[in-house]
Amino acid sequence: MTEDELDSFVGFARRLADESGTIIRAGFRSSKEVLEKGDATPVTPFDREAEAAIRRAIETEYPEHGIIGEELGSLRDGAEFVWVVDPIDGTKSFIAGLPVFGTLIALARHGVPVLGLIDQPCTVERWIGAAGVPTTYNGRPIRVRECPDLSQALICTTSPDAYAGEERSAFERLRSAARWTVYGGNCYAFGRIADGHIDVGLEVSCHNYDYCALAPIVQGAGGIITDWQGQPLTIASGTRFLATGDARSHDAALRHLMDAR
Amino acid sequence: MTEDELDSFVGFARRLADESGTIIRAGFRSSKEVLEKGDATPVTPFDREAEAAIRRAIETEYPEHGIIGEELGSLRDGAEFVWVVDPIDGTKSFIAGLPVFGTLIALARHGVPVLGLIDQPCTVERWIGAAGVPTTYNGRPIRVRECPDLSQALICTTSPDAYAGEERSAFERLRSAARWTVYGGNCYAFGRIADGHIDVGLEVSCHNYDYCALAPIVQGAGGIITDWQGQPLTIASGTRFLATGDARSHDAALRHLMDAR
Repeated sequence: MTEDELDSFVGFARRLADESGTIIRAGFRSSKEVLEKGDATPVTPFDREAEAAIRRAIETEYPEHGIIGEELGSLRDGAEFVWVVDPIDGTKSFIAGLPVFGTLIALARHGVPVLGLIDQPCTVERWIGAAGVPTTYNGRPIRVRECPDLSQALICTTSPDAYAGEERSAFERLRSAARWTVYGGNCYAFGRIADGHIDVGLEVSCHNYDYCALAPIVQGAGGIITDWQGQPLTIASGTRFLATGDARSHDAALRHLMDAR
Repeated sequence: MTEDELDSFVGFARRLADESGTIIRAGFRSSKEVLEKGDATPVTPFDREAEAAIRRAIETEYPEHGIIGEELGSLRDGAEFVWVVDPIDGTKSFIAGLPVFGTLIALARHGVPVLGLIDQPCTVERWIGAAGVPTTYNGRPIRVRECPDLSQALICTTSPDAYAGEERSAFERLRSAARWTVYGGNCYAFGRIADGHIDVGLEVSCHNYDYCALAPIVQGAGGIITDWQGQPLTIASGTRFLATGDARSHDAALRHLMDAR
């Protein structure tokens, strides 16, 4: 993949987010209609409509690329290039009218995320990360902040209810070791790790469309994002991940998560 | 208190929010400076600066009125009219860069909240409630939604970590009885109860500056807000409150909270 190719992919990802953003913005706070999926998580017609628009654009522009989407399944997922998409990450926040959800668009090459985009269409915020270049927030380069000591860290996770058994104990150990915890941020909070407002973020019960976009964004801002074994995230990673701005906080946090690995 | 008097107070509350909003907007994501209060909750220079500006304006306009503020204490709190102010409700969200904090401005008469305002200066959103008139969101009248059955409810609370012992058990009972839970919304989520996106909200470990502004907003939109005994909120209520859009959900929720009353 050349630099020019990556640039084209970034431009295309922006176009995808422009298109999904139009659909999602129109739906935000406009409707009370919510469906329940088999796994008791909510989905709205706007999730599906936005993902369908994104998939149509990919099929037209890059018919040989694969697609993995939260709502509409997988297609050619063994291809060299695979787009990994969650049209509304944080559907509960979306239906609750809280502007801390986001659209996640990633491109993985040979299974490794090389491009990631978080779009918040209602507050008009966009993070873009791509291999080898600095992550941007609304076009400006951003950087994580230092947090050498976990006891000073502001940490985030979306919902403690997602953690059970050993995972719950591990989360409580980490939470007790940190300074403050904020909940409910979804992908949006991981953008805030990249631009230096939050120090540590973790999630469980995830799929690749929940984290693939976050990896290039956090890494391109100087942060670290891995699974709970400390391994780099790929399209085939497990259900848990940990992101930090400072490598020292990452080491310390991993130790607290150890027993649940 | 005449209708004209109440109108004047509402206009004045808008001016207060305009002024505090300018300070808070300038501070949002601009600084990493955070102080820690004695109770291990964060405070920023912008909290204090915004509250000082609000207090100066009240002292000038209504020198006989009382003032209760989160950051700078109480003054004439036995007066007929007392302003109850929290410049940044949701300081952790503020420092994390998550736009779900808000400025709370209430006016209580003989201890009863008669006017409430929630201002989100960064997303430019404002809820205003006043005795006897419909609550507005950005100037338009709003209304709660129906939720006859708690099992269909979307509920919110800021952090489950605030609940201990009997309170925690009560919260878990309520959460299990409801459909979905969102965390991290602070006062902003109670605005979303008033405009019909969330069905039930509850908090513990609160002060009067956390709930006084919410009461006229929720009530003026057709909802119910009380303490955990089902009693109306006053300046002297306890540390827990419960708000719902639908009275039937309120009855059902109170029953789940019963043992922790």
